[in-house]
Amino acid sequence: MPVPLRNDCFLRACLRQATPHTPVWLMRQAGRYLPEYRATREHAGNSFMGLATNVQYATEVTLQPLERFALDAAILFSDILTVPDAMGLGLSFGVGEGPRFAHPVRDEAAVAALHVPDLGKLRYVFDAVASIRRALGGRVPLIGFSGSPWTLACYMVEGGSSSDYRRVKTMLYARPDLLHRILDVNTRALIAYLNAQVDAGAQALMVFDSWGGVLADGVFRRFSLDYTRRVLAGVQREKDGQRIPLIVFTKGGGQWLQDLAGCGADVVGLDWTTDLGRARALVGGQVALQGNLDPMVLFAPPEAVAREAVAVLDAFGPPRRADGGWDGHVFNLGHGINQHTPPEHVSALVEAVHSHSRRLRQAS
Amino acid sequence: MPVPLRNDCFLRACLRQATPHTPVWLMRQAGRYLPEYRATREHAGNSFMGLATNVQYATEVTLQPLERFALDAAILFSDILTVPDAMGLGLSFGVGEGPRFAHPVRDEAAVAALHVPDLGKLRYVFDAVASIRRALGGRVPLIGFSGSPWTLACYMVEGGSSSDYRRVKTMLYARPDLLHRILDVNTRALIAYLNAQVDAGAQALMVFDSWGGVLADGVFRRFSLDYTRRVLAGVQREKDGQRIPLIVFTKGGGQWLQDLAGCGADVVGLDWTTDLGRARALVGGQVALQGNLDPMVLFAPPEAVAREAVAVLDAFGPPRRADGGWDGHVFNLGHGINQHTPPEHVSALVEAVHSHSRRLRQAS
Repeated sequence: MPVPLRNDCFLRACLRQATPHTPVWLMRQAGRYLPEYRATREHAGNSFMGLATNVQYATEVTLQPLERFALDAAILFSDILTVPDAMGLGLSFGVGEGPRFAHPVRDEAAVAALHVPDLGKLRYVFDAVASIRRALGGRVPLIGFSGSPWTLACYMVEGGSSSDYRRVKTMLYARPDLLHRILDVNTRALIAYLNAQVDAGAQALMVFDSWGGVLADGVFRRFSLDYTRRVLAGVQREKDGQRIPLIVFTKGGGQWLQDLAGCGADVVGLDWTTDLGRARALVGGQVALQGNLDPMVLFAPPEAVAREAVAVLDAFGPPRRADGGWDGHVFNLGHGINQHTPPEHVSALVEAVHSHSRRLRQAS
Repeated sequence: MPVPLRNDCFLRACLRQATPHTPVWLMRQAGRYLPEYRATREHAGNSFMGLATNVQYATEVTLQPLERFALDAAILFSDILTVPDAMGLGLSFGVGEGPRFAHPVRDEAAVAALHVPDLGKLRYVFDAVASIRRALGGRVPLIGFSGSPWTLACYMVEGGSSSDYRRVKTMLYARPDLLHRILDVNTRALIAYLNAQVDAGAQALMVFDSWGGVLADGVFRRFSLDYTRRVLAGVQREKDGQRIPLIVFTKGGGQWLQDLAGCGADVVGLDWTTDLGRARALVGGQVALQGNLDPMVLFAPPEAVAREAVAVLDAFGPPRRADGGWDGHVFNLGHGINQHTPPEHVSALVEAVHSHSRRLRQAS
């Protein structure tokens, strides 16, 4: 039987239940801005995948930000590209560069050869989940994650990062049948992958649709959201009597908020271009919202960081509604934390979120 | 007295007047995707500024796309960074790289030293406008343009392109006073610059707020839109009895459509993430809309290009309203045309826009 959670604020906010403060965690909170992360990474041969594939290292770096900051959730240390790597695409991370695939999927033959990978190849991920969960000992919940089918397809077709998504969009407009086949394989793989993370101990799941926002209006629905919806529908929503909240984050998806709110997620993540108050008015009765501070705010002095955090909390407003029910807000950045961020500024942020959100609850 | 316009479809659509077809032009239509452009550029020492600062070359390349395609407007061949260059920041374009400033504006002293440049330094731009206008001989109208105060500030502070806008956003959050001073100088410079373009013969003006979409919700209004509004308010709106339409394009600004529609522009440009029908319903009674095909569509075969162009026209719908009045649509891409675009696909696009938009008018 798992240890009971000592801080379930994050899970409760995801499910739109009462919380004493607004929970906060940060995308990429275990990462290069922390000197202790850089030290562990050096031990691992200065390799990202060296960290991610080693259970002990992955556990260590996942817990590092929790030692420094009063964060309300932990997130598995891994990468969204582990799944296409297990499909045999040959993932590597050059020093100071983005991810690269040795075998991108660009023609009919490569698409036909694509299959849902044997989950055994991703065993290191599930082992890490189980190990981190044990190491947490009920301190805070552990979030598992994956990329969205579309976001994975971007990397698989482009072979790495892209500024214009020319290859994958050419496939989309010229050979939609090929892209649909990639998305279908990705969808089935992600359902198995996320379910195995829950089996291993993940207490919430997040789907990162990092590149959904580069798609045209109707195209987003057909080539990104519909597949994300299928992923969510295939994932187990309860484990050991506990509900597993599902979070979807489409960077640049502010215009599609109502579609996103109806895709089966409990929580919709937002970047900083969307006003949280307006978003809450539109969909706050349906889903919790996660976000949405601009990560660049963290380069300003601590007083400015605190001021901007307060502005985000005030935009959402007191989560308790006039009718006595609760809407959900999980504080986060609108994108991963930048590697040059001063860690002291993160302390100021977490403190401001906790203290101001308590004040908001008293005042309301 | 200037030659009368033979095709004023573009100007009429901007002003929400009746037109026989939907006018079309493309951002960066005079550019590297055209072999004749690359040939002229080679003559000019393979230098972008070599083209832009030479009246004869600038005229030649501006007209090149009109020889190939039945476009409804010409746009001055120049760059948004001519203004900060004239301020003494030292603009250069490395081969295969983006723009660079030798003297970026990053500290209090550099900000204090910034001044509205002597318009004489930009004489080559106004000479090009006059020369292009003569060369056009009334074929189609000529659009002049500038960057927005915020977009120029991004380049001026970052010193070039940026993926995260860390320097300019740090200034924004840590020293807003410095950024406001830069924006104020830019605003005054742009008013003078755009008015001089109209004096030289520009028949419409477009303000490119290329990086407005990277700002947080409320921040966009204070640091981008408010200054763009000041620019528009300072620009002459009529010349020789002809109204000068003003176009504003904030890439990624779809969530701020109503704010943009109220900023004093006649036309609001949209990227492909916004549904034109929804945009028209929101603000079509107030401003014309420009856009919004994903430039990557042009890599698909001509039939797919035509199909996607039809989808954009259908999303806007027949411009004539039920009450007999007209709403305005200017067809364009949602961003500059990509340098690898096959020119034949542009022919297919222009043809599809003209023929389908005529059909739409007959059917309605």
